[in-house]
Amino acid sequence: MIIVKIGGGDKINIKGIIEVIVHGANALRDKLAEDLGQPKQVLTSVKGYTSVYSDEKLLDVMMMAYAGLRNKRIVELCHQHGINAVGLSGLDGKIVQGRRNKGIRVYQGKKLKIVRDFSGKPQTVNAPLLQLLLDNGYVPVLTVPIIDEQNAAINTENDDVVRVLQQALQADMVINLIGAPGFLENKDDENSLIENIFASELEAREQQVDGRMKRKMLAVRKLFEHGASKVIISDGRTKHPVTDALAGKGTVIT
Amino acid sequence: MIIVKIGGGDKINIKGIIEVIVHGANALRDKLAEDLGQPKQVLTSVKGYTSVYSDEKLLDVMMMAYAGLRNKRIVELCHQHGINAVGLSGLDGKIVQGRRNKGIRVYQGKKLKIVRDFSGKPQTVNAPLLQLLLDNGYVPVLTVPIIDEQNAAINTENDDVVRVLQQALQADMVINLIGAPGFLENKDDENSLIENIFASELEAREQQVDGRMKRKMLAVRKLFEHGASKVIISDGRTKHPVTDALAGKGTVIT
Repeated sequence: MIIVKIGGGDKINIKGIIEVIVHGANALRDKLAEDLGQPKQVLTSVKGYTSVYSDEKLLDVMMMAYAGLRNKRIVELCHQHGINAVGLSGLDGKIVQGRRNKGIRVYQGKKLKIVRDFSGKPQTVNAPLLQLLLDNGYVPVLTVPIIDEQNAAINTENDDVVRVLQQALQADMVINLIGAPGFLENKDDENSLIENIFASELEAREQQVDGRMKRKMLAVRKLFEHGASKVIISDGRTKHPVTDALAGKGTVIT
Repeated sequence: MIIVKIGGGDKINIKGIIEVIVHGANALRDKLAEDLGQPKQVLTSVKGYTSVYSDEKLLDVMMMAYAGLRNKRIVELCHQHGINAVGLSGLDGKIVQGRRNKGIRVYQGKKLKIVRDFSGKPQTVNAPLLQLLLDNGYVPVLTVPIIDEQNAAINTENDDVVRVLQQALQADMVINLIGAPGFLENKDDENSLIENIFASELEAREQQVDGRMKRKMLAVRKLFEHGASKVIISDGRTKHPVTDALAGKGTVIT
């Protein structure tokens, strides 16, 4: 079982992709939010992790960008390549259920403040529904939002969705397609690709980067803590990203 | 088996609804298109039926409004009422497949012109997938777009989706929730409700109205041609629209 995670950047080539798919749409969401005159606000937790302030309006925009436009265009593309895709948000059949955050500790100026929004962490997967679809030849194409314990839609990181999926499906390999050749020693230099990383190095690598990449590396670390044996961070912009990844291009983490 | 169709108006109360659901989102789509600076264009065919000019951008907006925001908020609401909903567009698992229109004959000034867009008519339903979901306790919540014979996303009338669903599922009753008390003798007078219509009168009633309602009545007529025994056009704005409809409120067509 291979899970393919597609980043939310603009330039991901979604052709040539197979199996369970989890995708983002952050670039699309941000543009849509801008166009609608309600640009996203970013929170930075006291621990240094950034996240989008997810109020009800931002959730609306997410439903449009992730579960709507991006998800359905990926499903359409899959069908055009003979893949019988079914697009689902985490809400559908409660396929990904989570716990809403009690609040995120942020500094406002020098003042510590707790901000609560519609965001949280995925906890469980409706594995029987996923299995039902897989057993009948469908390829689930999953994205956020997910559903919380009160049946409200919440935002979460797709990387965390991949983690709970990996556990539920016992996937041995996760392919993480991003808008770069892989993990870069210097994020501004595409020639600084690191080809191999040991799982034991992940915590150190995480400290080396910030923003979304920091969160991504944390998610990869958690994948190994929960039983993954191989994660490939690879370029989603090539013609055949999955084939390339399986051929060992990108950053192979073992 | 009862199919519930929810109109796309702003004021539909989506609480208290059960079973297979098909929903619109035209008010939301129109507002979104306006907000994004690309207001919809309406085509009027030579036969007098109106339809939205569905180019690729309009399809994008539809995916956001129908399959994204509206679909996922309905799914969320269903879960909050104990209904295990799975939201799907017609693209997902090719659950509703259709044929793209060859072109719509319109007058531009006095000149007859054929305009081709991404719109069409639904032809087939993936009944096994619907049945798989129903048999496992899920309530499918369906909306446009659907998929055409070339695996492209196309716009279609949700009323036509209801028709092919009714045939595929052999539903005996269709409840059509709209933003009015039912079929009105005078569309501007909510007190002019017609409580009972015989199927044989439908063609005449269709001539009495225009715009969306004309198309809706055509769709109802086709439901009877394909085996429906009862259609209720009822008010979606009440507290318990389905209960009300089943109690005979609205326009009962037999």
